[in-house]
Amino acid sequence: MTTSTTTPDTSWVLSLSCPDQPGIVAAVAGLLAEHGGNITESQQFGDPLSGLFFMRVEVTSSGSRADLETALTALAPRFGLQWSLDVAGRKMRTLLLGSTAAHCVNDLAFRQRSEGLPIDIVGLVSNHTALADMAAFYDIPFHHVPVTRETKADAEARLLALVEELDVELVVLARYMQILSDDLCRALAGRVINIHHSFLPSFKGARPYAQAHDRGVKLIGATAHYVTGDLDEGPIIEQDVERVDHSRGVADLVALGQDVERRALARAVRWHAEHRVLLDGHRTIVFR
Amino acid sequence: MTTSTTTPDTSWVLSLSCPDQPGIVAAVAGLLAEHGGNITESQQFGDPLSGLFFMRVEVTSSGSRADLETALTALAPRFGLQWSLDVAGRKMRTLLLGSTAAHCVNDLAFRQRSEGLPIDIVGLVSNHTALADMAAFYDIPFHHVPVTRETKADAEARLLALVEELDVELVVLARYMQILSDDLCRALAGRVINIHHSFLPSFKGARPYAQAHDRGVKLIGATAHYVTGDLDEGPIIEQDVERVDHSRGVADLVALGQDVERRALARAVRWHAEHRVLLDGHRTIVFR
Amino acid sequence: MTTSTTTPDTSWVLSLSCPDQPGIVAAVAGLLAEHGGNITESQQFGDPLSGLFFMRVEVTSSGSRADLETALTALAPRFGLQWSLDVAGRKMRTLLLGSTAAHCVNDLAFRQRSEGLPIDIVGLVSNHTALADMAAFYDIPFHHVPVTRETKADAEARLLALVEELDVELVVLARYMQILSDDLCRALAGRVINIHHSFLPSFKGARPYAQAHDRGVKLIGATAHYVTGDLDEGPIIEQDVERVDHSRGVADLVALGQDVERRALARAVRWHAEHRVLLDGHRTIVFR
Amino acid sequence: MTTSTTTPDTSWVLSLSCPDQPGIVAAVAGLLAEHGGNITESQQFGDPLSGLFFMRVEVTSSGSRADLETALTALAPRFGLQWSLDVAGRKMRTLLLGSTAAHCVNDLAFRQRSEGLPIDIVGLVSNHTALADMAAFYDIPFHHVPVTRETKADAEARLLALVEELDVELVVLARYMQILSDDLCRALAGRVINIHHSFLPSFKGARPYAQAHDRGVKLIGATAHYVTGDLDEGPIIEQDVERVDHSRGVADLVALGQDVERRALARAVRWHAEHRVLLDGHRTIVFR
Repeated sequence: MTTSTTTPDTSWVLSLSCPDQPGIVAAVAGLLAEHGGNITESQQFGDPLSGLFFMRVEVTSSGSRADLETALTALAPRFGLQWSLDVAGRKMRTLLLGSTAAHCVNDLAFRQRSEGLPIDIVGLVSNHTALADMAAFYDIPFHHVPVTRETKADAEARLLALVEELDVELVVLARYMQILSDDLCRALAGRVINIHHSFLPSFKGARPYAQAHDRGVKLIGATAHYVTGDLDEGPIIEQDVERVDHSRGVADLVALGQDVERRALARAVRWHAEHRVLLDGHRTIVFR
Repeated sequence: MTTSTTTPDTSWVLSLSCPDQPGIVAAVAGLLAEHGGNITESQQFGDPLSGLFFMRVEVTSSGSRADLETALTALAPRFGLQWSLDVAGRKMRTLLLGSTAAHCVNDLAFRQRSEGLPIDIVGLVSNHTALADMAAFYDIPFHHVPVTRETKADAEARLLALVEELDVELVVLARYMQILSDDLCRALAGRVINIHHSFLPSFKGARPYAQAHDRGVKLIGATAHYVTGDLDEGPIIEQDVERVDHSRGVADLVALGQDVERRALARAVRWHAEHRVLLDGHRTIVFR
Repeated sequence: MTTSTTTPDTSWVLSLSCPDQPGIVAAVAGLLAEHGGNITESQQFGDPLSGLFFMRVEVTSSGSRADLETALTALAPRFGLQWSLDVAGRKMRTLLLGSTAAHCVNDLAFRQRSEGLPIDIVGLVSNHTALADMAAFYDIPFHHVPVTRETKADAEARLLALVEELDVELVVLARYMQILSDDLCRALAGRVINIHHSFLPSFKGARPYAQAHDRGVKLIGATAHYVTGDLDEGPIIEQDVERVDHSRGVADLVALGQDVERRALARAVRWHAEHRVLLDGHRTIVFR
Repeated sequence: MTTSTTTPDTSWVLSLSCPDQPGIVAAVAGLLAEHGGNITESQQFGDPLSGLFFMRVEVTSSGSRADLETALTALAPRFGLQWSLDVAGRKMRTLLLGSTAAHCVNDLAFRQRSEGLPIDIVGLVSNHTALADMAAFYDIPFHHVPVTRETKADAEARLLALVEELDVELVVLARYMQILSDDLCRALAGRVINIHHSFLPSFKGARPYAQAHDRGVKLIGATAHYVTGDLDEGPIIEQDVERVDHSRGVADLVALGQDVERRALARAVRWHAEHRVLLDGHRTIVFR
């Protein structure tokens, strides 16, 4: 993905999946060892249900990207490997989509700047202008793309064009209050993360905090998931909850929920950017 | 409820609800002060949605039960009070219903014996015999009441008779795998607590852990609630969750869930027995 | 504290403490009822160890501030009441002190703007200039007050002058890396909240995350407390923790800890600003 | 450790550590592949501070124990491997030590019976007789070994003899209120787990809940750790906490703490029995 020349000390992240069978780890670890690789952290998991095997390796190697890629390309057919190789810690080019709520945008932008969240926010797209000032403060280019029923197709085309122009690897719906079309979901499959403000599958759809309040739950939650054409049904990456009690009205839940939402979203974005999340059908493997 | 004579040092729990209006706290606190009452802990809450006011008071008083009850009975019409008065810390007479899973029964029985859970378990009813030994160990009378489609009405009649005979105040469904009939739910309304092995309203009905596994959730939960005729829809008293990851199969979730279930159930039973739970429509006020 | 004229619908917060004795609640609730008060939320607690009684009431009243204050002043001697009365939800005038770390400042400023944290941040004092931009973004006046061994007394004098000029009610040490002198602690007693980046009393003093890493703890924590002359020994208001594992180095703990610190600090500041925190010797009563 | 003949489907757990260097994973995975091994779950970690590398593998293999052990023994010198091989899920022979508190003993015994905790409790040693009934209920041989200052050496000799006779692999101090001598600690190094009823390093030594109450902490905790001659300073395996508030007296903390203690202890015992815990100096690697 990047074209940086690699030094003898480059630290790489290799993540892969394939049908489960004996010998995968030996073959991959052998390949890495032949390129002077020293594994510093690794996790493997075979899912007995899907019959798939998953692996994530952080490895320090003196091999060049070209050499490693050539070797992996040669190995792939033997096991049916799907793999990705990246420089560890490289910042993933990320586009934020927001509407008026500022908490998730502020949180991701702040974490990028001060907590080492490995993303490079290359733009903020919004159907409103409320977040323009915040974008300016964080030096994020702001794109106002209004959406009405009539202009929705144009707006999505504009969005796709931005994804292309800006070489975007990850799109984050940071409380973006528009539903993406099926076509857009398909075009960006596996590259869009949404934060839903409930503990899915509870309270799908609109006004989840009002639903939660009405049901009298004692914990409210948030769910970060990949976006698919099936609303609020995409593979879950992370969930978190917060305790509430009878004294909290709907407005309190909304305010309290902001904390849970940004926490769950920030973790999901970090894990995705660090190549810790792999798809296993409609479920996720998360090598934390 | 009990008829124990009270000494000058008796500590009482008074809980009450009524339509919200000015002067309630002053009137109740005044009444208690006139009976030499010293309030040691108290909480009040007015629900702006339902228009109801709720209050729980722990008070040390030299007044006799009869005097206090007379005064409260006299005060009640003025505010439309629904009240209950009990000796603080009195053990509530409780009947457990279980099937084959032992963890909730063991937990409640153990906490009664060693952690001061203020219940007196006067019997364990089961449609199986697997828990008979455990009942014997804890000195709990065991009643084997098998249930088939044909005998269900008889079994419920037997259950109701036991509730009467044993002067039962609280019935706990400790992973009892039978659905109570509407009539029984109505007869015991507000006195039956169930533990459902999911974070309601997610995964109602059968095999919630299998549902949770299939959906790929990252937290599993349990919900303690009052039983109503509407399955898994009763007022929620307490919920708790536990983190899981992709490596956990359904059997792991079942095992891990036991911990969450018993924790949530034990808290709900404690709060109910301490008169901390008041009904506000289909929601609960919990004065923890 | 404020001089706003009150309308018939004003919602007040009254918090008080006094030696425990019968009749307090009756007298206070009676007083409020006489002024047309309707209690919407209240909590009371009598500490058997200290012999003190604590009470917090939210009450809607048609009484004027002057009338209520006169009545409370008249009642106080009878019970030895220490009380404060404030308009519910009024924003407390708050001065932030920071150094170079931005996360707590950003978090408090953001919550004030977007989550209804009831403080009015009237200034940010820092011994560095790194946070000047952020202060500007949030429209917070920035005061650069450098501190060296030689200028410390002057810097503290400047700080005290600002507290006076700006009518500051609360000072928050938002990762301010200077130790306040005993004199300053005394002058501002009960009005300064600090966030310590460990689960006190573990890891007092410098570099707590390095200490935590070296000890191999499995949870890291943060503690919000009132500042006293006794470093890291002041009354604790709130604590929180986050799970870590062996793969986390000291730098990871520092980054992860930022989340815990800002969460614990924001809660402590909210509860203080809402008059939910009362002092019980070197411990706190927190009516959440 | 066991001598069971292995079938083609045997699932093994291999855990190892050694000085970090390139090629370890390749060599180990290669060795396993040569014995028909299919890795189902694995984790690796290189600690940059200690320079040690850690690995845990679950592998299904058709190789016999003898063959695998021979191959590992041959490989070990090349990397300086310290390794252990066990049948996955084998129950570890465990001796409990208790005094009068029943909650940890009951919890471990119950989890062994009903939640698949992979230990085989071969005995309960106690300096009191209070737990004899519970041992009988769970079919655990009970050994009454009183300890006084005079008989301490004899009691420890008796304990060591039991460890030998019963082929004990793990000793669990389940709220055993005696301090083991340095000699005993050394003799059983790495095989004794204790539960301390505080969030270490806070509140070492006696009466931690009273210390916690006095300090006014807002969370209480428990710490499961390996026992060393240095009291409460051994490597931490697991910690957990529970929220408390001002209304809780010392007795409440003791009761609430039972939950945290048994939870932290049960996890530590499970992870140890599943060979998930490896020592990295005075810290632990826990491959959960």
